[in-house]
Amino acid sequence: ITISGVTGELVSKGNHRHFMLKEIYEQPIVVAQTLRSYLQRMDDRVTLPIPDFDLGAIRRVTIVACGTSFYAGMVAKYWFEQFARVPVDLDVASEFRYRAPVMEEGGLALFISQSGETADTLAALRHARSEGQRIAVVVNVPTSTMAREADLLLPTHAGPEIGVASTKAFTCQLAVLAALAVNLARAKATLAEGEESEIVRQLAEAPAALNAALAQDGAIEAMAHTIAAARDVLYLGRGTDYPLALEGALKLKEISYIHAEGYAAGEMKHGPIALIDDAVPVIVIASSGPLFDKTVSNMQEVQARGGKVVLISDDEGIAAAGEGCLATIAMPKVHPLIAPLVYAIPVQLLAYHVAVAKGTDVDQPRNLAKSVTVE
Amino acid sequence: ITISGVTGELVSKGNHRHFMLKEIYEQPIVVAQTLRSYLQRMDDRVTLPIPDFDLGAIRRVTIVACGTSFYAGMVAKYWFEQFARVPVDLDVASEFRYRAPVMEEGGLALFISQSGETADTLAALRHARSEGQRIAVVVNVPTSTMAREADLLLPTHAGPEIGVASTKAFTCQLAVLAALAVNLARAKATLAEGEESEIVRQLAEAPAALNAALAQDGAIEAMAHTIAAARDVLYLGRGTDYPLALEGALKLKEISYIHAEGYAAGEMKHGPIALIDDAVPVIVIASSGPLFDKTVSNMQEVQARGGKVVLISDDEGIAAAGEGCLATIAMPKVHPLIAPLVYAIPVQLLAYHVAVAKGTDVDQPRNLAKSVTVE
Repeated sequence: ITISGVTGELVSKGNHRHFMLKEIYEQPIVVAQTLRSYLQRMDDRVTLPIPDFDLGAIRRVTIVACGTSFYAGMVAKYWFEQFARVPVDLDVASEFRYRAPVMEEGGLALFISQSGETADTLAALRHARSEGQRIAVVVNVPTSTMAREADLLLPTHAGPEIGVASTKAFTCQLAVLAALAVNLARAKATLAEGEESEIVRQLAEAPAALNAALAQDGAIEAMAHTIAAARDVLYLGRGTDYPLALEGALKLKEISYIHAEGYAAGEMKHGPIALIDDAVPVIVIASSGPLFDKTVSNMQEVQARGGKVVLISDDEGIAAAGEGCLATIAMPKVHPLIAPLVYAIPVQLLAYHVAVAKGTDVDQPRNLAKSVTVE
Repeated sequence: ITISGVTGELVSKGNHRHFMLKEIYEQPIVVAQTLRSYLQRMDDRVTLPIPDFDLGAIRRVTIVACGTSFYAGMVAKYWFEQFARVPVDLDVASEFRYRAPVMEEGGLALFISQSGETADTLAALRHARSEGQRIAVVVNVPTSTMAREADLLLPTHAGPEIGVASTKAFTCQLAVLAALAVNLARAKATLAEGEESEIVRQLAEAPAALNAALAQDGAIEAMAHTIAAARDVLYLGRGTDYPLALEGALKLKEISYIHAEGYAAGEMKHGPIALIDDAVPVIVIASSGPLFDKTVSNMQEVQARGGKVVLISDDEGIAAAGEGCLATIAMPKVHPLIAPLVYAIPVQLLAYHVAVAKGTDVDQPRNLAKSVTVE
């Protein structure tokens, strides 16, 4: 099923001021479209487009990508290891292809690219092929070079993405990777009784959760000026909130030209905390769960040193730790396999509204191309 | 042999204005001291303190550390894979310990810490032990908790490090990790005929190369003002120059409070290049070798967008690509196994002189502790 054909309707901005905002708002629909290929609601099962691909034989997964797609891969590393107990190597394509990586037999190499044409990622794919790895790709363009060269093609159905800063392609990648995590876990028999049907239920509710996240648009727009005035920003998280922090920082860099940097919250004390003063806002992503208290403890260290904090969490998290923050952004409380999709929305909206407040060219940021098809 | 006992002489600043500068200048001596335990010049062999530790049985190495020690571990990942063809997993301790990492049988888990007491790293060590891994540690305090809990203790002989920003501990860690890389490679029979004795010769010459790098101190001091005026800096590199770029950025953050960020040079086009204008200097580390042209190509993309570049390379590299740079810093041309030690010197000196120019407290930067013994 190809639904990414370019039509007049798909490439207009509709009622939105920018393609980026339109694409942010499309996410509940395109994530649902994407998941439709991977969920069998009647059987409460998650499937792949090639159902007889033998995931049980996979001993290790090597994930390679660039930019935003790399951060989707980083989320997948946490998921594959946690849910399927399959070890994962992860690298940016421009490093992977030149460092003579050691890949063991029985490995699956997974490449993620919106366009399916990213030069470094494609070269990495061919290198992995020459090393005897099986090749899986997550791409948004099913006719792309990477799609043609894959053993296991895992398409996203995000539709054409026009804004240079990737948004809906990212959440659709996460949806596919979540489905792959569940398939891997089933093949490895690591799921508890009833866990798969619970996950199917949660994934099926993801579009509703994305809508709930989008409902915070007005609140995010109203506080964007507190970030727009900053020249530097730190973005912190632990676990799967860490790649989200990296993605949030990348979005701010790309379209608002603010120097935002993502950091593992636990690494703050090993250097970056020296940067903290009242001119460097710190955005903390802390979804509910076992790492919440650890992240909040790092957040309080920032506050104790005069740092201004924006906390993105659910109602429970904000009730527990939101006091004394510059601002809070409330997300719905969701399953850990859905949280990265949901938390992508506020980091995208925040970057968008900050860029609009600064008056930068949101859809065509300086110096950037949509697909990087040269090295 | 313990040479890290604290004596009056070792903890005075001598003729130096700050402990950090004294410790930067000690590096040729303490690296030589450290290497003395690992090189057998008479036999042209590299050895370990526990020569009968069976490295041949090691199928995978998991490296875990925090901060500067993590960047030493990142260099080691490139080395272990390239020289010994042993695959390496790498993680920051605060993420590793909470993400339920999958560790296979027959693995060596390697922990790096100056103090040997870093809380997250120690917790990660104990987790790896409980998962059946053999435990190696690279520590500067041989009486530390990590040293006591190791199967393979690999001490650095840097002497007490007083400056909060780590310098000599880092290069001594790299010296030990280079020695471990060669031992691993010998055990895996991946070294070509004569390669080990060539590497021994190169390692034995490392202290002289560090002295040659220190000879650039005046030149670096003279250009430090060009960086001191910046609020934001990007630091780029490929291969083992990439962790050096991360370490250079961390040093600037720690003591000069400039928001410097390290990036894999090939990832620039996937977002961060949007930050580039004439107010954000870009420091490029490009040692001679197969990646040089690729890095220079990324550097030229920065220059084409009005970015001001400082190039750290050897004479050959500067002759090839130095034109049009804001400044160049010339290093001796050295073997790839020595380059990270040598290139550590200019990134340390640059951070030092920038901090002095800005008047910050070099030896006791705000918000930071020397050893992070809490989570």
